[in-house]
Amino acid sequence: MSRFWVEKVTELQPYVPGEQPATGSVVKLNTNEHALSPSDAVMAAISAVQGEQLRRYPDPAASGLCDAIAAVEGLTAACVFPGNGSDEVLAHLWFAFLSGRTVCTLDTTYGFYPVWAKLYGSQLVEVPVLEDFSVDIGALGQSHDAIVLANPNAPTGLALRRADIESLVASNRDRLVIIDEAYYGFGAESAAPLVADYDNLMISRSLSKSHALAGMRVGYALAHPDLIEGLNRVKDSFNSYPLDAVAQAAATAAISDAEWFEQASQAVAQSRAQLTEGLGSLGFQVLPSMANFVFTRHPEVGGEALFAALRQEGVLVRRWSKPRIGDWLRITVGSGEQNERLLTSVAQFLKNQ
Amino acid sequence: MSRFWVEKVTELQPYVPGEQPATGSVVKLNTNEHALSPSDAVMAAISAVQGEQLRRYPDPAASGLCDAIAAVEGLTAACVFPGNGSDEVLAHLWFAFLSGRTVCTLDTTYGFYPVWAKLYGSQLVEVPVLEDFSVDIGALGQSHDAIVLANPNAPTGLALRRADIESLVASNRDRLVIIDEAYYGFGAESAAPLVADYDNLMISRSLSKSHALAGMRVGYALAHPDLIEGLNRVKDSFNSYPLDAVAQAAATAAISDAEWFEQASQAVAQSRAQLTEGLGSLGFQVLPSMANFVFTRHPEVGGEALFAALRQEGVLVRRWSKPRIGDWLRITVGSGEQNERLLTSVAQFLKNQ
Repeated sequence: MSRFWVEKVTELQPYVPGEQPATGSVVKLNTNEHALSPSDAVMAAISAVQGEQLRRYPDPAASGLCDAIAAVEGLTAACVFPGNGSDEVLAHLWFAFLSGRTVCTLDTTYGFYPVWAKLYGSQLVEVPVLEDFSVDIGALGQSHDAIVLANPNAPTGLALRRADIESLVASNRDRLVIIDEAYYGFGAESAAPLVADYDNLMISRSLSKSHALAGMRVGYALAHPDLIEGLNRVKDSFNSYPLDAVAQAAATAAISDAEWFEQASQAVAQSRAQLTEGLGSLGFQVLPSMANFVFTRHPEVGGEALFAALRQEGVLVRRWSKPRIGDWLRITVGSGEQNERLLTSVAQFLKNQ
Repeated sequence: MSRFWVEKVTELQPYVPGEQPATGSVVKLNTNEHALSPSDAVMAAISAVQGEQLRRYPDPAASGLCDAIAAVEGLTAACVFPGNGSDEVLAHLWFAFLSGRTVCTLDTTYGFYPVWAKLYGSQLVEVPVLEDFSVDIGALGQSHDAIVLANPNAPTGLALRRADIESLVASNRDRLVIIDEAYYGFGAESAAPLVADYDNLMISRSLSKSHALAGMRVGYALAHPDLIEGLNRVKDSFNSYPLDAVAQAAATAAISDAEWFEQASQAVAQSRAQLTEGLGSLGFQVLPSMANFVFTRHPEVGGEALFAALRQEGVLVRRWSKPRIGDWLRITVGSGEQNERLLTSVAQFLKNQ
């Protein structure tokens, strides 16, 4: 605290990301990093960066990356806004379209939404998910200025169908609908094909999960060019060059490697099925996930005790001390070996009860 | 324009950075990139980055980089705030300490200050620099909440002495004084040694110029830990991980290579002296610069015509269509060869008049 802080700074409730331990010896299943290493094309692109590219400013618009994304999505580059991770994209989006407005989201979803709402003075209305954590589309929108949904949702992993998203977007033409697809690429239907038809839809994406590039900080939005223009006005009033030359090269290579993306997506789906089965056979309830994590609880075991026991064993997972989900754990789909280590530790814990 | 923009977005006046041409054939002296390539240690650090570091999230606090900066500056790491270029650092700083407040700066200085003032609702009071572009320290502060100065100033290149900065900071203990040292490392005295003594001083720095890393997007602030805490609250309410793993490794290597920094600084000073002399012998007035650029005009030639003629010859420099400085050009100190190309083109233009 300092006498120079503006009042708002004292009121902020910053987001607390999952722990990032410096040591590599833990089984790290707490922040949904990809089970595989990034594409070889990414490593090659980074190796090819010359000193001259670092000496000079990067392309402020990251045009090559936008072109690559547009090509994959069947859109024009004017529908793409790249940023320093989808968190920066969402922050700019919040400023541009949601500041001072009423925003409808879910009570069980990404924990950064209330933080941005506070930062930019939005009133957040949190509609409860149903008992089974599914979403009642009909209960959203109504009197609010905008709707923000993560799809698949975190931490549940549940996904809405594209047809459901379309009905929401189509029945709220004067409300902006934001679909946060941080966990796209693991089986859920994307709303991206709707962007060409609806000027009230905006999608945010991250390469952190889908392309195993959490360390590279690249995300983007897909939307009608008029919405993208609004984002660019905010970005160009904040920081002209949020994506460094290496990140632009790496992300462009990642987006362009369709074969890696396909195989990696299948590998995660397979590993997710094994993890789900393994937890199921130990008596766990596991929500049907379309993400690279599962949300799970054991009917006879408290979430806090299990979380602590796993941590003791060097297995990091994620848990929130919140009323509805305090007994649930969110577990990243790891490699086969990591999943085994987790299941072994869980089985040991259950045996000791 | 879209019906979903909040009103503020329509009012923004985004910053327009200097042109970044895709082609490498121009003599690019318009955005103050360093004349030399970055340190070999930087390239080695980038080559050493493994896929595993990209798969995982980076350290959200960039602790290794903060430690390296703190060691060089003789401060603790709690006095360091790293960010995605000094523009992001300044943007967060503006939100945290200047939003809604009256801020005193100069009428001839970095063009992003009015943009952030607009973004965060500050009232900017622009005190005119004197006829010779020097700064009347006594005219600053007074009734305003805060003072923002670039030192060396841009686009003039003129620098205040540390003693002048200290007198300003010492006589305004209840006002925050922000010194933007984007152009440190080329001969000007830094205010960094004052950070330990004054809790109303904040310094921002960029690695873009000083370390030839414009393409890498790294900057930082130096200040009392209470001010740094305020910056972290804003950053953690915006984007947890603004610095990717590669940028952290590259910047840490750059900061730690004291030998490169020393030699590069001397090389630029030498090249600046040559450029200044060359322009002088062609009849130009050149302000005494402490940055890696010079600010110059010819008493008999309009700035607009010269700018256009140079552009025609493939030599890019920077010019602003503003009353006081319309006849001046800001020219980056390039390599010996680039400076020669510039001087040759200028001489040719003068001959044709």
